[in-house]
Amino acid sequence: MAGGVGSRIWPVSTQQMPKQFVDIVGCGRTLLQLTMDRFKGLVPDENVWVVTSRHYRDIVHEQLPQIPLGNILLEPCRRNTAPCIAYASWRIKKQDPKANIVVSPSDHFVLDTVEFRRIAASCLEFVSVSDSIVTLGIRPSRPETGYGYIQVDRSASSPRNPSILRVDAFREKPDLATATRYLEQGNYLWNAGIFIWNVNTIVNSLRIYAREISEIFENLLPFLATEREQEKVDEAFPTCPSISIDYAVMEKAEEIFCHPSDFGWSDMGTWGSLHDNTPSDAAGNTLIGPVDTYETRNCIIHTSGLKKVIVQGLEGYIVAEKDGQLLICKLSEEQRIKDFSGGN
Amino acid sequence: MAGGVGSRIWPVSTQQMPKQFVDIVGCGRTLLQLTMDRFKGLVPDENVWVVTSRHYRDIVHEQLPQIPLGNILLEPCRRNTAPCIAYASWRIKKQDPKANIVVSPSDHFVLDTVEFRRIAASCLEFVSVSDSIVTLGIRPSRPETGYGYIQVDRSASSPRNPSILRVDAFREKPDLATATRYLEQGNYLWNAGIFIWNVNTIVNSLRIYAREISEIFENLLPFLATEREQEKVDEAFPTCPSISIDYAVMEKAEEIFCHPSDFGWSDMGTWGSLHDNTPSDAAGNTLIGPVDTYETRNCIIHTSGLKKVIVQGLEGYIVAEKDGQLLICKLSEEQRIKDFSGGN
Repeated sequence: MAGGVGSRIWPVSTQQMPKQFVDIVGCGRTLLQLTMDRFKGLVPDENVWVVTSRHYRDIVHEQLPQIPLGNILLEPCRRNTAPCIAYASWRIKKQDPKANIVVSPSDHFVLDTVEFRRIAASCLEFVSVSDSIVTLGIRPSRPETGYGYIQVDRSASSPRNPSILRVDAFREKPDLATATRYLEQGNYLWNAGIFIWNVNTIVNSLRIYAREISEIFENLLPFLATEREQEKVDEAFPTCPSISIDYAVMEKAEEIFCHPSDFGWSDMGTWGSLHDNTPSDAAGNTLIGPVDTYETRNCIIHTSGLKKVIVQGLEGYIVAEKDGQLLICKLSEEQRIKDFSGGN
Repeated sequence: MAGGVGSRIWPVSTQQMPKQFVDIVGCGRTLLQLTMDRFKGLVPDENVWVVTSRHYRDIVHEQLPQIPLGNILLEPCRRNTAPCIAYASWRIKKQDPKANIVVSPSDHFVLDTVEFRRIAASCLEFVSVSDSIVTLGIRPSRPETGYGYIQVDRSASSPRNPSILRVDAFREKPDLATATRYLEQGNYLWNAGIFIWNVNTIVNSLRIYAREISEIFENLLPFLATEREQEKVDEAFPTCPSISIDYAVMEKAEEIFCHPSDFGWSDMGTWGSLHDNTPSDAAGNTLIGPVDTYETRNCIIHTSGLKKVIVQGLEGYIVAEKDGQLLICKLSEEQRIKDFSGGN
């Protein structure tokens, strides 16, 4: 899934160039490319499908030249994750009715890719012989209020794979007291928005729980993988309701499993999460770009487009520049960035 | 005089593009152009001479296309103000032995140009009939320790022009206690480095007080205003001692006059002086460029090369960007900028 717009980390992420297409961590690879890299050895290039906005087609093709152009599916408009996943699922089903699928955001960061691959492989094996929905649940390291949580039943693991637990409930973003309780209780995991299933499981789940969406793609089916695919998708896709896969399926489905995971995950949704998940210097600064600091602590400075940056006397700030747009803002005020940037 | 490098306001002023060539105040004109504008109606374009480094010849020509290319005198190296003024003086004398001259830095700012012109005209008239050295002394508004002072004798005004006073002494940059006393005593003025004299006065003064320099230009005289001028200047100029006109002449000359002045002068030498001498918003911010501020006070933000700048939660800082170089620094620490920038 590569259609999102991460406006909370403006100006590094903008509508023209959202964060999945940006080298956020300063390693020379964009988050989309890092996501692709993560599946190396697990999924052949030609089996990778990217769903994105039609505006980003060329960017995706440029950043992932190894995947067939026909594997880049183009949404004519944004309709949240359920229609996005439905489109890919029906399209893949037409080509390979027995496909096993990992659904993954393209704008998240995973530190331990070996562990990620191990868990993804284990779940893929699981769904290849089971019509189950499996999610990855990240072991929480702090009472984060910005993520949804998955409540698991630690006593109910799958007989087929003891690492995979039954899900009791999906929980929306909690307040701090609730998040703190979740952390104490130990059976709540962060919902990373990563799903593993076989194609029939998700198609059937959408047929049961999201009829409005499934009917649209049933009607599209004759045109998928034909010359008229884009034309027909452009007509029908905007008629989908805008709804997340969590609301459309996860919160309704009867039996869902979760694989608790610990691979250094971050959604990179905020400057704070970026600060927490990238290496810092001794003063707690995350410096991405050519930066010299003096008397500066606990800052994230992301200015890789600039030639020389001097920062003196800042504590707890974000400094970010991209394409002539500069942000200086207290880390504690970062929830206001969307307003500052005018939604761009 | 347009050969200086204002490295204290890096990155807006750099060796490649010193501040006289930059639109520091964000009005659409560089300090050099504003200096030229200041003499409109007083000095015809063809009587304006610019002494600069040979590296800046094209910049000067581009910014002041109205002055003849031959009026741009090129120093092969930096030798402070005395050799610079000597070169221009001998060159002008050869062309017009009766010239009256205003010597002015090109990187200062004057708010009230009408008053500046009135005073300059009055002084030019004075020196046209008197072999006197006249300086402009700025009425101090604060006990500034960054400027030199001129001590005047308030009881000794010139019979020919009662606004022009006799100078008792030139004083180097004082400490704060001394500067405070100067301000209280009322007969100390800031030395703005602006001099008015006729060409014979300065040439003779240099002959008397700076023989090392005058001899060099006496020898050059046959070549000035000829095809070989540049070649000969390039040979001889580096042999000049590096010395300011204040040390070479002002502090030695017997009779110097000063016209007290009040035309909103600033040397623009520091971010603080820029902050003090340009319009501020209600929160005391000087904003030059497309900047939106939130909870930001007493900052100077100079980012006219950027497309969009958001600053939240800063108080008493400099934020300046130019050509991919970004500075964020407390105003109170600005004396360290030279070190930060590596002298560039």
